[in-house]
Amino acid sequence: MKKLAFGVDIGGINTAFGLVDEKGELYGESVISTRAYPAYKDYPRYVADLCEAMLTLVKAVNFEFELIGIGIGAPNANYYKGTIETPANLWKFTADDPVQDESLRMFDFAGDVGKYFPGVPIYVTNDANAATIGEMVYGNAKGMKDFIMVTLGTGVGSGFVSNGQMIYGHDGFAGEFGHVIVERGGRDCGCGRKGCLEAYASAIGIKRTAFELMATMNDPSPLRAISFDDLDSAMLSQAAAKGDPIALEAFRVTGQRLGYALADAVTITSPEAIFLFGGLAKAGDLLLDPIKWYMEENMLFAFKNKVKVLPSGLQSKNAAILGASALVWQNM
Amino acid sequence: MKKLAFGVDIGGINTAFGLVDEKGELYGESVISTRAYPAYKDYPRYVADLCEAMLTLVKAVNFEFELIGIGIGAPNANYYKGTIETPANLWKFTADDPVQDESLRMFDFAGDVGKYFPGVPIYVTNDANAATIGEMVYGNAKGMKDFIMVTLGTGVGSGFVSNGQMIYGHDGFAGEFGHVIVERGGRDCGCGRKGCLEAYASAIGIKRTAFELMATMNDPSPLRAISFDDLDSAMLSQAAAKGDPIALEAFRVTGQRLGYALADAVTITSPEAIFLFGGLAKAGDLLLDPIKWYMEENMLFAFKNKVKVLPSGLQSKNAAILGASALVWQNM
Repeated sequence: MKKLAFGVDIGGINTAFGLVDEKGELYGESVISTRAYPAYKDYPRYVADLCEAMLTLVKAVNFEFELIGIGIGAPNANYYKGTIETPANLWKFTADDPVQDESLRMFDFAGDVGKYFPGVPIYVTNDANAATIGEMVYGNAKGMKDFIMVTLGTGVGSGFVSNGQMIYGHDGFAGEFGHVIVERGGRDCGCGRKGCLEAYASAIGIKRTAFELMATMNDPSPLRAISFDDLDSAMLSQAAAKGDPIALEAFRVTGQRLGYALADAVTITSPEAIFLFGGLAKAGDLLLDPIKWYMEENMLFAFKNKVKVLPSGLQSKNAAILGASALVWQNM
Repeated sequence: MKKLAFGVDIGGINTAFGLVDEKGELYGESVISTRAYPAYKDYPRYVADLCEAMLTLVKAVNFEFELIGIGIGAPNANYYKGTIETPANLWKFTADDPVQDESLRMFDFAGDVGKYFPGVPIYVTNDANAATIGEMVYGNAKGMKDFIMVTLGTGVGSGFVSNGQMIYGHDGFAGEFGHVIVERGGRDCGCGRKGCLEAYASAIGIKRTAFELMATMNDPSPLRAISFDDLDSAMLSQAAAKGDPIALEAFRVTGQRLGYALADAVTITSPEAIFLFGGLAKAGDLLLDPIKWYMEENMLFAFKNKVKVLPSGLQSKNAAILGASALVWQNM
């Protein structure tokens, strides 16, 4: 009988899910809002609604199949425990909650979903790790035993693979490459510290850089007519493609930060390749070229000209669902 | 029959070796000079003399045993190929060598030693990785699946263990933590770049710091009577123990560099513990205290107060031999 796995991607706005076979082919997909369940007390209803929608999708598939597992990508997910732990943007305490103890925002997600799918193995990991495993199972990292995945979205996530295994670390939280410090005492980061890579090299980071450059450079640019709230990284790509000097400089500076930080990461894990994934990675060579240049400029001799920097092979709109489902196939 | 493994530690000055059982007990040890064979053309004679001395040690053991393998720790060693590749201080070209092509200084060490020990498995890795495996097999990392070893000697070496396995990287050269950049455009490093951790946090790095501090501070200190060539890190430990302000500040600054760099490394591999090994680590709390303080000060929330920083359990004089022999036991 055909075997399918669920891939579930929990984002701050939507939760997308679909049934995927071992080749990465999608057999039905659907979505529910995450944003509609923002409060701590909404969590049980969110789980119930999500699982009902998943069961509806199972029934909609018009052939018999075996559901071999559920893979879930979520922020602040703990692979070892199956939990989602104090996620910054999900199920927050509201003013009328009697308790406000952050340590209680610890959700037994695998356990709670499991009640609706008895006997089905459930795996939970953070979204960047899910993308990494997706790359290994379906994408350009097939057959590679040592690589780094960097996800450049609203934040900067990462997954490190060594000896063919995901590095989860002793507590399941490894791979927070977005939070290496690239500028001590630098920009405020969402994590509460200053100078993290994420504050410079995410989709929001490059926007911050563009605004800094509007202050330091005198070149005229249509970007000067756009507010901080309205500007996004796709606009910067378009402007750069037209030769806008501020946008071009923003990509150069962002590539430099990433290139330098990646050269340091290479000294630790010596990967065969580095993959770039996510919204900002869609800028392509605008970002890849300076990353490669500054990474090599700064590389320890032993690693020079040995490490490939490549776009992810899973840039489709379903990449996050595929990545989450890959967790299941990888655990087979 | 009792099983023993050879551990061989190749340093720039001496090559020490010994026969070790699975508990880390040493049954005979010996040493030959490495320095007596400095030139490229000396290499075959070095291998012959080393292997003869090893065979002599085998004969000297007064009970029957099975030699189950040879583990070798050496600079620039490639675990996958068994080679020593263009080592900075070993078997250099002399002026009268007809070729001077650096890429030819590639020694098939496992193969060459193997001719003297037919049928015996031979493993080669760099000295820091050997120390790491020694810690895992005989030392304080027993039973740990995720930890970092940092060796603070003339240079700064490291070994990263994840999922119970050494991270060798795709080419066998991973774990060069001493060459992450901690100060862009900073001090000259032996690797030819500037600002590497090694230039600040090795035994020589702390000496450089002390000399910098003699320039920036006005405090009187007996250290001011000692030349750069004569000062070593043990003298700095002794001075700091007596309250010398320059020595104390040198340890604080060195611990700060290490603590900051380790906080970044923790975000990548999320280890259970970090072990410190080597000459400078003998300074104990003088160095451990500032490392812990600055690492925690700079730690991403998810990892705060979770990662132990500990001295190595193998600080004896035979640690390097034990580490090399552990390669064999780990591969059993």
